[in-house]
Amino acid sequence: MHFEVTILGSNGAIPAYDRHPTSHFLNYNGDGFLLDCGEGTQIQMSRHNIKRGRLDHVFITHLHGDHFFGMMGLITSFNLNYREHTLHIHGPLGIEEIVNAHFKYAQTQLKYPIEFHVITDDRPRLVFENNALTVESIILKHRIPTTGFLFREKTGMRKILPEKIALHQIPVQDISRIKQGADYTQSDGSVIANKEMTADPAPARSYAFCTDTVYNESILDQIQGVSVLYHEATFLNMHKDRAAETLHSTTGEAATIASKAQVGKLIIGHYSARYEDLAPMLAECQEVFLNTELAIEGKSYTI
Amino acid sequence: MHFEVTILGSNGAIPAYDRHPTSHFLNYNGDGFLLDCGEGTQIQMSRHNIKRGRLDHVFITHLHGDHFFGMMGLITSFNLNYREHTLHIHGPLGIEEIVNAHFKYAQTQLKYPIEFHVITDDRPRLVFENNALTVESIILKHRIPTTGFLFREKTGMRKILPEKIALHQIPVQDISRIKQGADYTQSDGSVIANKEMTADPAPARSYAFCTDTVYNESILDQIQGVSVLYHEATFLNMHKDRAAETLHSTTGEAATIASKAQVGKLIIGHYSARYEDLAPMLAECQEVFLNTELAIEGKSYTI
Repeated sequence: MHFEVTILGSNGAIPAYDRHPTSHFLNYNGDGFLLDCGEGTQIQMSRHNIKRGRLDHVFITHLHGDHFFGMMGLITSFNLNYREHTLHIHGPLGIEEIVNAHFKYAQTQLKYPIEFHVITDDRPRLVFENNALTVESIILKHRIPTTGFLFREKTGMRKILPEKIALHQIPVQDISRIKQGADYTQSDGSVIANKEMTADPAPARSYAFCTDTVYNESILDQIQGVSVLYHEATFLNMHKDRAAETLHSTTGEAATIASKAQVGKLIIGHYSARYEDLAPMLAECQEVFLNTELAIEGKSYTI
Repeated sequence: MHFEVTILGSNGAIPAYDRHPTSHFLNYNGDGFLLDCGEGTQIQMSRHNIKRGRLDHVFITHLHGDHFFGMMGLITSFNLNYREHTLHIHGPLGIEEIVNAHFKYAQTQLKYPIEFHVITDDRPRLVFENNALTVESIILKHRIPTTGFLFREKTGMRKILPEKIALHQIPVQDISRIKQGADYTQSDGSVIANKEMTADPAPARSYAFCTDTVYNESILDQIQGVSVLYHEATFLNMHKDRAAETLHSTTGEAATIASKAQVGKLIIGHYSARYEDLAPMLAECQEVFLNTELAIEGKSYTI
């Protein structure tokens, strides 16, 4: 299954150096999930050839503008493009009120439904699931209520070993049950154990999206061992006082979280507009956690 | 005096082909005026090196999103950049409510004041003036209340003729009054008429910003003879039924308004996302009104 994230906006609150406010597009086997929606997200989607036809879920971490000012434009363009199927918006209390304030004066009647799913969690919770994925809220610490999101693939089917299927002449109509873990009873009554015919499924992949937040070890248990962690790193270590003041993280703090959580890969972003050159941010992270990458707009990262 | 407009967004409702929703930046001798503020305006300002330090007035034509979804981002970035002086927002009823809905949940206390100037006109009115300019509302016809804006330079001072000042040995402290039209009384009591010492001032320049609107001859008297008219031309002539349905204009209609108003130059924009190639739009206008230009993002037009 295809599972990747494309960065649409990598910067912090003030756009700078042609870097845009936060937005990530997650593609799971063709289904789209938008994580935050800063100003210009719909334009970035076009620029980076993101198909939005199967984008049905938008997740908003918090109501600072650099994380959702692009949402109204996206909603409006869906409408002008004759969208008919439901758009689900998951996020903090207030989004619906803000959306409605806009439409009141635009006299817009949407041609498709929006369902708002309010997140006011003070502990992690399953906020969405489908056949393939679960999404949990991650409780972050910022100046206003903020939740990250943990996308986790459901454990897949067991992998059939074709040579064993041939050896035991197992009929095709039994394969599906065997993939789900069943043993096979032969015509003489003898039983072939499932593990004789199958291998373990691929490990479930996961993506944790943690922005905006101060350094917060209370998320470690939840994100332990995720495949890819996106963690904001607004400031260089030298500006740690500014990070503390504004409840953001430094590069060193993001990398420490990655290291303690033993994640597969760390991606950092939400760069302060004061930094044009991002190489020092990457270097500071890699001192603590080597497998770090910078969030670069337009780039896709396999989960 | 420097008087020019820079196009920041040239497209209609749906961004397309890297063309952005409507925004024009007017520079009058260093003072900035923003006309509409579609999504991405602040990013376009950076891209096109627009100085925003002397931008104190934003004029919003109407509350369709493609004309104001960039306003919250601009307001927020001003705040993060420590703006202290007042920002004036001129536009329809509802803007203040929408802005406040955002700040309620962001828990933002702005460090600078915003003054909202509500425009609910059903006839043209002086909505702003300073020492150099007047701004009038233009009543447009669209699906919701919409006003264009007419910027007109105040007639300047009379131009001193230096050789006459020298000839009559006129003291420097009298020059200012003479520029304002006064005669000069010599020590022997004889009077030198103002027109002996001065030439007429340069003609007052003007910029009319008309978007969004259906073809509407009732604006002709007001915009008669303006230096530059921006008039929306969302559709080619072949799509005139669609223009009528949505209360927009065709190229031919925009050019007819320009021709009947005998303006100096027509700039068209607010292109429908269905058109990648804009050359046919320009050609259709020029058949009716030769001195037409396309609004091109990043390009500045001298008024």
